Amino acid sequence: MSVTPNPRLVHFIAGAAGGWRIREIRTVIGEGFPAADYLDVAATPPPIATPTALNCAWSLRGATSNERYVTQDEKQQLVAKQEGLGRPDSLFGALIPIKKSAAWWALTQEARRAIFEEKSHHTQIGLRYLPSIARRLHHCRDLSTAEPFDFLTWFEYPAAAEADFDHLLRELRASPEWSYVEREVDIRLER
Amino acid sequence: MSVTPNPRLVHFIAGAAGGWRIREIRTVIGEGFPAADYLDVAATPPPIATPTALNCAWSLRGATSNERYVTQDEKQQLVAKQEGLGRPDSLFGALIPIKKSAAWWALTQEARRAIFEEKSHHTQIGLRYLPSIARRLHHCRDLSTAEPFDFLTWFEYPAAAEADFDHLLRELRASPEWSYVEREVDIRLER
Repeated sequence: MSVTPNPRLVHFIAGAAGGWRIREIRTVIGEGFPAADYLDVAATPPPIATPTALNCAWSLRGATSNERYVTQDEKQQLVAKQEGLGRPDSLFGALIPIKKSAAWWALTQEARRAIFEEKSHHTQIGLRYLPSIARRLHHCRDLSTAEPFDFLTWFEYPAAAEADFDHLLRELRASPEWSYVEREVDIRLER
Repeated sequence: MSVTPNPRLVHFIAGAAGGWRIREIRTVIGEGFPAADYLDVAATPPPIATPTALNCAWSLRGATSNERYVTQDEKQQLVAKQEGLGRPDSLFGALIPIKKSAAWWALTQEARRAIFEEKSHHTQIGLRYLPSIARRLHHCRDLSTAEPFDFLTWFEYPAAAEADFDHLLRELRASPEWSYVEREVDIRLER
C-alpha cells in the first residue's frame, strides 16, 4: 500500500496558530463549525490532537483536480483574466466548504453543466470579479475517507474588495445551482 | 480528522487467498504487476504486510462516484440494458487498471467527452456487449494518496463470453481515446 499523499492534496487546519487569522465563521446552510483563532494551509496533515496538545480545532482537506464544467472558450477567458494566489496585496481570504445533495450527484454531467452555467452562470459570475478575487477549488468527494463536504473553495483578495466578494457570493447563492447546496460555511480570513 | 473510509471505496487485494482466482495478468501498456494467485474484493483495506505475514502481493483501490461523460439519453440506454454484479452465471471476471496521460487531464470536460464518445464511441461500444458483460468503474485520481492508476474497471461475465470480452477490449484499445492511456494491466479472474 502506498502512503505517499496525493501531491495535489491540501490541508486546512484551524487552531491556535497558522498563517491566516480567522476573522469570522459564518454558517450559511446546515451545521456550523467550532470557533478557532487561526487557519493554516499545509501540504502535510495536522498533528493528531491529544488531551495535552489540543492544537487542532478542526481540519478539512481536498485535492485540486482536473476541470469538470468549463468549456474551452470559458477556460481561455479565465486564463486571460485570472491571477495566482499569494499576491502581496491580497491580505484577505476566505475558505468556503460546500456539500451538495444526493440529487445533484445523481444528475448526468450534461444536466449538472446546464444548471452550473446555462442556468446559474457560475463561471460568468466569477469572471466578472477577476482578477481581483483569486480562487482555487479543492475536491473532497472522492477522497479515501468520508468527508463532510464535497468542495472547499479558497479565495484571496485585497481588503478593499470585500464588498465585491460579498456581492459575488450573493449572486451565486441566489442561483438555481444553490438549491442543491445542503451545507455551506463561510470562513473569513486575514493574512 | 475523520478516519471513516469513503463508503464508496473498494479495495482489490492480490495474495494467497480471495474470492477470485487470478487466471492471468497481462501487461498491456507500461509497467506490469507481480504475480499472485488470488484476488479479494473488499470494503476494508488489506492487512499490513510484515516479514512473517506477506499475505498481500499488491493492492489497488478506487471509489465509485458520479458519472462524468454519459448523456441522459446514453444513461437511459445503459440502465435499460445493464445488469448488476454477482450474477450466478458470471463466473469469469477482469480487473483493468488504467492510467491516462497528463495531456488527457489538461483537456477540458467537453474535449474529453468528444474524444471519449464522439470520436471513440466508448459508451456505444460498451452498450453492444450488455447485458452479458457487466461493469463497475472505480476512480483513483482524487484519492488522498498518490495512486498508480486513474481508474480501475471491474467486469463480470459468463465464461462463454470471454471471446466477446476480448473483442470489446480490442475495439476500445483501437480507439483515439486509448492514445491517452499510458499504463494498462489486464487481470483475468475466475470466481
